[in-house]
Amino acid sequence: MKVGIIGASGYSGEVLVKLLLGHPRVTLAAVTSRTLAGQPLASVMPAVRGIDRGLKFVDSDAAALAAGDIDLFFLALPHGAAAVYAQALVAAGKRVIDLSADFRIADLATYRKYYGEHHAPELLPSARFVIPELTPPAWKKEAKLVAAPGCYPTSILIPLVPLLAGGLVTREHIVANSFSGVSGAGRKVEESYLFVERAESAKAYGLVKHRHLAEIEEQLALRTGAPTIIQFNPHLAPMRRGIATTITVPAAKGATIEAVYAAWAKAYGASPFVQVLSAGQTPDTAHTVGTNRIDISAAHDPRTGNFLLTSAEDNLMKGASGQAVQIMNLWCGFEETAGLR
Amino acid sequence: MKVGIIGASGYSGEVLVKLLLGHPRVTLAAVTSRTLAGQPLASVMPAVRGIDRGLKFVDSDAAALAAGDIDLFFLALPHGAAAVYAQALVAAGKRVIDLSADFRIADLATYRKYYGEHHAPELLPSARFVIPELTPPAWKKEAKLVAAPGCYPTSILIPLVPLLAGGLVTREHIVANSFSGVSGAGRKVEESYLFVERAESAKAYGLVKHRHLAEIEEQLALRTGAPTIIQFNPHLAPMRRGIATTITVPAAKGATIEAVYAAWAKAYGASPFVQVLSAGQTPDTAHTVGTNRIDISAAHDPRTGNFLLTSAEDNLMKGASGQAVQIMNLWCGFEETAGLR
Amino acid sequence: MKVGIIGASGYSGEVLVKLLLGHPRVTLAAVTSRTLAGQPLASVMPAVRGIDRGLKFVDSDAAALAAGDIDLFFLALPHGAAAVYAQALVAAGKRVIDLSADFRIADLATYRKYYGEHHAPELLPSARFVIPELTPPAWKKEAKLVAAPGCYPTSILIPLVPLLAGGLVTREHIVANSFSGVSGAGRKVEESYLFVERAESAKAYGLVKHRHLAEIEEQLALRTGAPTIIQFNPHLAPMRRGIATTITVPAAKGATIEAVYAAWAKAYGASPFVQVLSAGQTPDTAHTVGTNRIDISAAHDPRTGNFLLTSAEDNLMKGASGQAVQIMNLWCGFEETAGLR
Amino acid sequence: MKVGIIGASGYSGEVLVKLLLGHPRVTLAAVTSRTLAGQPLASVMPAVRGIDRGLKFVDSDAAALAAGDIDLFFLALPHGAAAVYAQALVAAGKRVIDLSADFRIADLATYRKYYGEHHAPELLPSARFVIPELTPPAWKKEAKLVAAPGCYPTSILIPLVPLLAGGLVTREHIVANSFSGVSGAGRKVEESYLFVERAESAKAYGLVKHRHLAEIEEQLALRTGAPTIIQFNPHLAPMRRGIATTITVPAAKGATIEAVYAAWAKAYGASPFVQVLSAGQTPDTAHTVGTNRIDISAAHDPRTGNFLLTSAEDNLMKGASGQAVQIMNLWCGFEETAGLR
Repeated sequence: MKVGIIGASGYSGEVLVKLLLGHPRVTLAAVTSRTLAGQPLASVMPAVRGIDRGLKFVDSDAAALAAGDIDLFFLALPHGAAAVYAQALVAAGKRVIDLSADFRIADLATYRKYYGEHHAPELLPSARFVIPELTPPAWKKEAKLVAAPGCYPTSILIPLVPLLAGGLVTREHIVANSFSGVSGAGRKVEESYLFVERAESAKAYGLVKHRHLAEIEEQLALRTGAPTIIQFNPHLAPMRRGIATTITVPAAKGATIEAVYAAWAKAYGASPFVQVLSAGQTPDTAHTVGTNRIDISAAHDPRTGNFLLTSAEDNLMKGASGQAVQIMNLWCGFEETAGLR
Repeated sequence: MKVGIIGASGYSGEVLVKLLLGHPRVTLAAVTSRTLAGQPLASVMPAVRGIDRGLKFVDSDAAALAAGDIDLFFLALPHGAAAVYAQALVAAGKRVIDLSADFRIADLATYRKYYGEHHAPELLPSARFVIPELTPPAWKKEAKLVAAPGCYPTSILIPLVPLLAGGLVTREHIVANSFSGVSGAGRKVEESYLFVERAESAKAYGLVKHRHLAEIEEQLALRTGAPTIIQFNPHLAPMRRGIATTITVPAAKGATIEAVYAAWAKAYGASPFVQVLSAGQTPDTAHTVGTNRIDISAAHDPRTGNFLLTSAEDNLMKGASGQAVQIMNLWCGFEETAGLR
Repeated sequence: MKVGIIGASGYSGEVLVKLLLGHPRVTLAAVTSRTLAGQPLASVMPAVRGIDRGLKFVDSDAAALAAGDIDLFFLALPHGAAAVYAQALVAAGKRVIDLSADFRIADLATYRKYYGEHHAPELLPSARFVIPELTPPAWKKEAKLVAAPGCYPTSILIPLVPLLAGGLVTREHIVANSFSGVSGAGRKVEESYLFVERAESAKAYGLVKHRHLAEIEEQLALRTGAPTIIQFNPHLAPMRRGIATTITVPAAKGATIEAVYAAWAKAYGASPFVQVLSAGQTPDTAHTVGTNRIDISAAHDPRTGNFLLTSAEDNLMKGASGQAVQIMNLWCGFEETAGLR
Repeated sequence: MKVGIIGASGYSGEVLVKLLLGHPRVTLAAVTSRTLAGQPLASVMPAVRGIDRGLKFVDSDAAALAAGDIDLFFLALPHGAAAVYAQALVAAGKRVIDLSADFRIADLATYRKYYGEHHAPELLPSARFVIPELTPPAWKKEAKLVAAPGCYPTSILIPLVPLLAGGLVTREHIVANSFSGVSGAGRKVEESYLFVERAESAKAYGLVKHRHLAEIEEQLALRTGAPTIIQFNPHLAPMRRGIATTITVPAAKGATIEAVYAAWAKAYGASPFVQVLSAGQTPDTAHTVGTNRIDISAAHDPRTGNFLLTSAEDNLMKGASGQAVQIMNLWCGFEETAGLR
């Protein structure tokens, strides 16, 4: 099956290129970029020297791509830029997986509140936000366009959803603290992302109104049966990749740590990319970087009555491109782990 | 005034040596270590080459030190080891500042629960836990021994105490998440502290039952008028120094962000080492490392009704040795900032 | 084909496990360790959670392994420990690839000078030091045991050998400076390898008498027609993986940069794992980490008359385990890049 | 004595501000910046919160500054920008210490070859390049303007000059390899200096024609009695600060390591900022960062006949601002170490 990537100049785009070049079931047929058209992939992405099969960036011509013989497209464009491509490609019957936030939110009003005007609202009814382990499988039939989730949302929803849905935790006083590698901010050439600024530095940012709240809370409402508001506190860590998330949430009356682990076993026992660690072990981002795995663990604090849910993932893999490939595998009927191990 | 350090082979001990060597009001007269006796300071602490005045480590003989002419001692020993020295030195009328946890907890039962048997309980009544900005000044007259606080407790108590004491936040559902540089774990030669294990790695550790909870909660009770339990979640960050703490706490009814800033201005307006940042700025550990400063900031989340209190400090300075020197300055009537700027 | 790893508790062992678990032509049938026997691979190597196929470490019983049905063994033991296993396995007709230095040196006197007594000298005649791109292919037929080269030697020999062999550089005044990530030192639990010691730190070490000189100079003599002595200066860099090497060597009379590039094109034009960069680009270790690639480049300094040869590789991949798998591929008639892309 | 800094928005400027704010013999009276005029120092340099005495950046008006009552100025401007200020201030009889390269080269033709047109050549005769430990003291009387050396040159000249001057090493085949923290590149907001690009990355850069060669070789000629050409290979290391330099140079006939150490003892025995380590110890940048010290060591390789000279310094301290303050101390008759310990 031929696949293409539209706009791959960012960090997640680079990871996506590597994954698809090595995928046993697909051929990466086109990688587009307005600014880099004509240049060999390897000259822009040194990590793929020797394995880029001589591919060059091509121009981002939506109509031409829609008319071509590529079956599935990944959109790795800045937020707001996907609309034109999504419209042309979906109309042409191509499968589209979007890595931006543009189609993650089903409710238009919510989208507007966090992102501003939507450029292709007519596509929303046939778009699906998909975390494979959580989204009911009907999406494979219903979706014309799949929105790959944001990095932080994945790290929060996977540990939390089964416990909320199972009534094991309360819906109030949920606090999610996350700690991300700098690549999560994107390839922005700004002073605060310089090495000298970020090395040996830890700080909170984006408190109160981080855009990821939109999809986190919409998914919590959809997947757990009732609206739920959380406190989400992101932080920058002095590393390139990885997200460590720690969620503090009050245990529901009578809920035990064993019940938590049972809920996770039920939800994820067959999931190749969710690793449940024992209550004594906390996940370490370094153990997940470069893999599509999210490791999770829980502890119970009898003094406070809280459960502490911890997770670790690679923000560019399970938090972005690895999950996008996992989505493609399921959508196209490949082995779920194809190209991801 | 002559000062001495007993047991200075750890990271905070090394910082303490540097601070005292450069202090304008004291002379560092002795640095003891059982294992390193006879070796020049500079051969063990390369950072003090050229400024160690030829000092060598001497043996840790409690009686000899108590009989000598050094007026004030810093104890930088592993937890549990300070008792013998504290007893001999206090009995001899020396001033003692202890960097370990041994004398931080006033309540013996609490101490036992977290640390085990206490080796010098008779000294507890004349020992004082001191955070200069928070502890009522009577300690300067009452204390025979001062316990310098732990690194995490300082980063949590300074932002939180004035707000709890002022009724601006509730006493329930307090969640403190902290990220610390690896030096916070001490100079332990263990596999998990190797460079290859800790670089590019973030993880939670010590959840539920971290020892610092003992002093945090005792101080909260003492300084804010009522017992308070918190959720404290520490994490290791891939950096050498610094602690970034983010506290999520529900606002009390009617409390505003302006009231928070007013409470902080009142509590810390005259404090040379507490920097209050505007609500739009979050503290960055890199801006505090090497200084004795703790930077704090607050934000209000109208959706959740929580205040988010953020702080950044250098775990080896304001979190340990810098604060110990600040305590000495106040105790001995020096300028509070002497040797710390 | 079934393969096994003897002694895999170090960093290169962990990388080897990952590579073999994902290799399309072999089945990893046994991973041995005296200390970890009985434990699941994933509990010791978190990076392989979910993909370790339930494998557990088994005991290192040379006789049992020699009698079993595994066809090829990788030895990933500390230097000096391979002898017993090599003897038993070679005698049983198994193919053996050793990652230690024990069989890299053909000349026993040289070995003794750098390493001490040799424990299996009778195996030396049928052992072969192999860098696939440089060693004449006869090794595939002649070798009973293959010694995978050291990390620094690979980074020096690949750029240098074709130029010395081609008379494009002199044999005197060769200076190789290398800069390695900390994993190159092995998983040693020693103070100088702690995170706090190695982060933000660069220093030379092992000057004058680094053990790798033995194999570097023996290979230079074997592959370039005459004995050659070099200055080799290794350094530790504050990163986990990667080696950057810069070789300064006087140009031979009349040698041009074009001739250098022609020699490299001839030597490596068909080598999938050697990437020759243009004279204007210098290799960056970050672009090679996680791959089996070594990137090389050259520049000419008309003022000094020197050529500057630069290389970058991942010390655990092309510098150790990746190259070991590449050797296996060639030895067993697989595609050279199998499992390495 | 009042001092001022012109243009302090880079990394060395920030370090200079901190040093001068804490200097016991001077008052920092003005810090200028065209772009930041009016802003408090602390808002741009968070590291000086609480100690900036309320100073704000002022406009860079050369005439106004020349007419004012500040006695000595540091110029911390981009290369090429110092001329206007130097001219006005020197004409007004102010002492000027320039941190740029503009006045480091005495020979105009050499300057042009590396930097292009010189904007104030008439100042060259009264300008002096000063490394306090190497430059004959007459500069204190003769200089109207002092050029503080570049970071790499200091790290190379200090170990090398006494040995060349003493005939202990040859003048041919000198190879200096240096590894620098990223702050050495300046506060350039460019993609290659982003955290994600520089972390876990080591690479050579600026080979063959690095601008620092101009001052290195001019100083070698001036201080050692004959013209000398060297190979200088700089590299970027994944750390913020520090330079580690390793110089390979053939020993002169009959020269011994003892003679090297004797030469260094003679040259630097009274130098507070040069630490000579024993032949068995190699300098570590982490031990010098934050100090004005350069640590040096030597080894002899009997096989190659080379001496290996190693040095470590903080590129922003002894490599720039620390050395600039040291120069001021000597020029103005203060204790050499004032404000630097």
